[in-house]
Amino acid sequence: MSHHSGAQRLDRDQELRERIRACALARVTEGGFAALTMQALAEDVGIATGSLYRHFRSKGELAAEVFADASQREVEALAAVLRASGRPSARLAAGLAQFAARAWSSRRLAFALIAEPVDPQVDEQRLLYREAYAELFVELLEEGVAAGEFRVPHSGLVAACLVGAIAEALIGPLSPPARAAREAGYLSQDLGDVSQSLITFCLRAVGAEEPQP
Amino acid sequence: MSHHSGAQRLDRDQELRERIRACALARVTEGGFAALTMQALAEDVGIATGSLYRHFRSKGELAAEVFADASQREVEALAAVLRASGRPSARLAAGLAQFAARAWSSRRLAFALIAEPVDPQVDEQRLLYREAYAELFVELLEEGVAAGEFRVPHSGLVAACLVGAIAEALIGPLSPPARAAREAGYLSQDLGDVSQSLITFCLRAVGAEEPQP
Repeated sequence: MSHHSGAQRLDRDQELRERIRACALARVTEGGFAALTMQALAEDVGIATGSLYRHFRSKGELAAEVFADASQREVEALAAVLRASGRPSARLAAGLAQFAARAWSSRRLAFALIAEPVDPQVDEQRLLYREAYAELFVELLEEGVAAGEFRVPHSGLVAACLVGAIAEALIGPLSPPARAAREAGYLSQDLGDVSQSLITFCLRAVGAEEPQP
Repeated sequence: MSHHSGAQRLDRDQELRERIRACALARVTEGGFAALTMQALAEDVGIATGSLYRHFRSKGELAAEVFADASQREVEALAAVLRASGRPSARLAAGLAQFAARAWSSRRLAFALIAEPVDPQVDEQRLLYREAYAELFVELLEEGVAAGEFRVPHSGLVAACLVGAIAEALIGPLSPPARAAREAGYLSQDLGDVSQSLITFCLRAVGAEEPQP
């Protein structure tokens, strides 16, 4: 009997933990990590702030889990395109277009994941996930070199360059000041421009033929 | 008399503040932001930890100032090469080679500046300094386009891509695990490889002719 209720309690704990993560992700999607305060989150979940701390020791720990959940989804979405069939250069272009479009459709979350200043625990996850992205590109680069489509001296380094270029290209257009400028009509940069510039940059950088306009 | 001693006191405060920043930079150069604790720093400077907090409200504030001091030096060193005379593509290559070489000669500091997980105040400075680097590249890209050497659709976005590529290319080779692997003989990546791969990547990406080997 006591064993049984212990198991039930573990299930309930697990369920509550999942609910907290889902509410936390909703907050970050809406207002970035700046909107993820333990107090506001406890209210969303409908529990006391103290109970929240029984599940996550600190805001940094929670933020790092939210980051990992959201980033894992992006890595998988990119992997699906990069590993699809077709020529490596076409897959690279399609992967970049999809990555930019997904960021564009959830700008606040994308900025939070890529660059929002936040706890060092999130910075640590950023380093790990950038390696995960780089590994996907290494795979594709090596396939492209084998197919004679890419000319790449060192796939590990070039993959890192791609990851950095993609992230940095999006930071400016996604950043809150850019959004304000766009809404006020000062900035006309749209997804098509950003996506196309990024694709051209990356295809050239890996020595692929540029796509015909 | 009281005015006079007030001025003296301001001078002394200013002098002590400078000394704290210099000691803090020495710590970060040696062991990264991880080595920058208020207690150890107070010992280096020879003051009480409490006095340190009279000059810098928090470790984050101090870390952000150390970051800005060190980054400003790097921006100026890069600007000197990118704005020198010569063809824009040669200046781009020289700037990249110098940037990598400077990072290589002070790896721990370079990793701290580029990617070490640390207080959000430093992340904020990182965003600002990346814009400063991007502005230097915008200048050079526009010169190169005018000279017919570069083909760049959107200099702002391409400059951001360059900044991201450069930073990310260096993170791996500079990171503490990479250093351990190199020292143990598992990793042979040297400055020449990294620098040459980065130059090739960037020159191709901006549509410049590749340098002859």
